[in-house]
Amino acid sequence: MPRFFVNKEDINGEHAFINGADAVHIGRSLRMRLGDELTVCCEGKDYTCRLDSVSDEQCGLTVLSVSEGSGEPSVRVTLYQAVPKSDKLELIVQKAVELGASEIVPVLTSRCVSRPDEKSFRKKRERLNKIALEAAKQCGRSIVPTVGDIISVEECAKRLGEHELGLICYEKGGAPLSETVSADRRDIGIFIGSEGGFDEAEVEKCRAEGAKVIGMGPRIMRCETAPIAAIAVVMSLTGNI
Amino acid sequence: MPRFFVNKEDINGEHAFINGADAVHIGRSLRMRLGDELTVCCEGKDYTCRLDSVSDEQCGLTVLSVSEGSGEPSVRVTLYQAVPKSDKLELIVQKAVELGASEIVPVLTSRCVSRPDEKSFRKKRERLNKIALEAAKQCGRSIVPTVGDIISVEECAKRLGEHELGLICYEKGGAPLSETVSADRRDIGIFIGSEGGFDEAEVEKCRAEGAKVIGMGPRIMRCETAPIAAIAVVMSLTGNI
Repeated sequence: MPRFFVNKEDINGEHAFINGADAVHIGRSLRMRLGDELTVCCEGKDYTCRLDSVSDEQCGLTVLSVSEGSGEPSVRVTLYQAVPKSDKLELIVQKAVELGASEIVPVLTSRCVSRPDEKSFRKKRERLNKIALEAAKQCGRSIVPTVGDIISVEECAKRLGEHELGLICYEKGGAPLSETVSADRRDIGIFIGSEGGFDEAEVEKCRAEGAKVIGMGPRIMRCETAPIAAIAVVMSLTGNI
Repeated sequence: MPRFFVNKEDINGEHAFINGADAVHIGRSLRMRLGDELTVCCEGKDYTCRLDSVSDEQCGLTVLSVSEGSGEPSVRVTLYQAVPKSDKLELIVQKAVELGASEIVPVLTSRCVSRPDEKSFRKKRERLNKIALEAAKQCGRSIVPTVGDIISVEECAKRLGEHELGLICYEKGGAPLSETVSADRRDIGIFIGSEGGFDEAEVEKCRAEGAKVIGMGPRIMRCETAPIAAIAVVMSLTGNI
């Protein structure tokens, strides 16, 4: 069933509304008819709705049933990703959302070759959030994970320390995820490097704030492979894959 | 240290040889000098070598030490991948190699939209094997995983039955990998669908040959995400990530 994300004010008791581009999409691309059913997602809940009216501006819906979003894992994973070259962040965002990450935060480390300034990243961020939204719809998430603003390593280290479990994946080795992530964890932050990984001072900063250093085995993964693999493994260890 | 794969006949006691394009690469692109060290990989062993001579045809080397290839996981994973659309198989092959798969075998299922004939796939397969070789060098494998010829679902089911553990990932659900793959497994075959997944008869065929049906959680992964996630989780469960 097609899924659409709406804001809280678009659900009013038994009635729900879908506005703008999504309304056009429902009427013109999907060619849905009055009486057809679709899923409206709002703040982690899934609303099964019936289509009552369609126009290019707004679709009107009747809420048939509500359930806790089935697409959400039991663990909230925040991916802190050092900005990689070219468009690799797009692949990373798409896959992280599919695998169940809740938030993606780009980080500027000393080894980042790509160093976008605030203004140029604002545009990129818009695009990344669009990719996150599309991935969330496609894979059946009940929330839309967000892509945040770029932060510094210092800020990232601080935030890692605030998670129930903060992890930094270091190419020079550390404990395996399977020995570090227990099944009952509910809030994990994972920091992954860009091409060339981390310098030791960066790892130390994160460790000093309480993050655990993780090794991902002897094979050197590309910087877009490591976050995908790490999130998949974390989801498996917490019973979500 | 740069890694090069050679054939058995290119290692002769204390002497090793690198021929053709790799020799040009060493001399011209990498600009290595006599006396520099590099790693030669052959049949799962890593040979640390010293460069004695360079030409566009051949590099001559002295073997300094030999070790069991450190880049190989303890489990041999064969990925049976239903042929996806466009160039997604390229991404799958690259990531599967990085994560430690030993062989990738394309399979033609009823829901494959892309249905290359033998001749057109032969060219594609050449390109896929090149991608596998590059990924193997880059990530530090000690063997070059191969991309096989396209096989039928019947043949795939039969081969799954011959592995120590055969798995088919079904979007309609099954047991999680974490309950199916024990740490001591040494030979696993995993069958992943294309866009649209499997039809039930195909799943039944594999089950009849002894394959276990796996579910990957409530989120519907894209067909290129599922193999990457599955191999990552299998490598974690067997202590290789």
